[in-house]
Amino acid sequence: MRISGLAATTGVAVATLKYYLREGLLPPGTATSRTQATYDEAHVSRVRLVRALTESAGLSLGAVREVLAALDDPPPSRHDLLGAAHHALVAAEGRGRPGGDEQDTARRRARELVAERGWCDDPLLVDRLAEQLRAADAAGVVVSDDYLRSLAAAADLVAAADLTTVQLEPAAALRQVVVGTLLTDPLVLTLRRMAQVRASQEVFGA
Amino acid sequence: MRISGLAATTGVAVATLKYYLREGLLPPGTATSRTQATYDEAHVSRVRLVRALTESAGLSLGAVREVLAALDDPPPSRHDLLGAAHHALVAAEGRGRPGGDEQDTARRRARELVAERGWCDDPLLVDRLAEQLRAADAAGVVVSDDYLRSLAAAADLVAAADLTTVQLEPAAALRQVVVGTLLTDPLVLTLRRMAQVRASQEVFGA
Repeated sequence: MRISGLAATTGVAVATLKYYLREGLLPPGTATSRTQATYDEAHVSRVRLVRALTESAGLSLGAVREVLAALDDPPPSRHDLLGAAHHALVAAEGRGRPGGDEQDTARRRARELVAERGWCDDPLLVDRLAEQLRAADAAGVVVSDDYLRSLAAAADLVAAADLTTVQLEPAAALRQVVVGTLLTDPLVLTLRRMAQVRASQEVFGA
Repeated sequence: MRISGLAATTGVAVATLKYYLREGLLPPGTATSRTQATYDEAHVSRVRLVRALTESAGLSLGAVREVLAALDDPPPSRHDLLGAAHHALVAAEGRGRPGGDEQDTARRRARELVAERGWCDDPLLVDRLAEQLRAADAAGVVVSDDYLRSLAAAADLVAAADLTTVQLEPAAALRQVVVGTLLTDPLVLTLRRMAQVRASQEVFGA
């Protein structure tokens, strides 16, 4: 199809598609003349992915580029693959501000939680968790150790469910972990709000 | 303290504080002359809250205004209070695009999940969940019924933990539900990533 057909199929304006092409978010079509090219189903699904990552997952175009680069270059083994997936996710989202010193309470708590659960101690994620704990504290939101442990237990459930969705073929698995996590993040937060209302009725009465 | 003292205490530039004052995000100080005013601890904590909501929770200034308006006007009873908290959260975050028709698969799935778990069927939240399901589908991310149920079970755990943090005094409870949810959302997503790495090692071997 021509670029106008790609626009009609995806509902994305031609000007936006040209922008994606210039920015390297969409691979060039097959040239049919000096000024025209044709696009195929791979382009349709790539445009849909870019839209989903920007509109639904709220990523910047720079972050989308990082994610696409990781997806376009899957590592050969499954073990490397999950490392690559996490690298893409963490790179796409940025790190927390590194804390002032080693005595920093938020950082100590983040490290203790990770050790207690046998989780990944990726310094980017530890920095991010520490900064989120600091931000909650600065806003007067109390995050007790018990509360943090409860959130961690729920995270283990989500992660176990996430892993059941991963297929065996490396490229598909990579896509599912990276894109699946980014696109189901908002869903996890919506479910939390829905569940809060029932939990509050149980506590306070209807 | 003067506005310069408020800036020094909070680490927020005077120009930004003046902007918050003009936009009504920060209540005026007590005037001490025609051009000067003093600010107190309540201003310090309000500035920290605005920073946390914009920087850590990623809210727009319009959304922050909605949240602050709800916090400044707590309803008298606890039951109304949780309704008010949810109204503030949902208003701050916007609704999903209402789906085309009643046959829409994503909307039907959202409704079925809510009914199955006895959750809140607030149409704003149902619209949002339906749109998130559509977005995942458009990006080629498979969200099976089993997977959705697992995420829902984890959401029930998070919500039960959330409710243990709620205090009995209405204004404090409102603040904890609204601000606590917004500021711990990013934390929930970071924990998910940390937990995924361990879950993947269990599935694929280290």
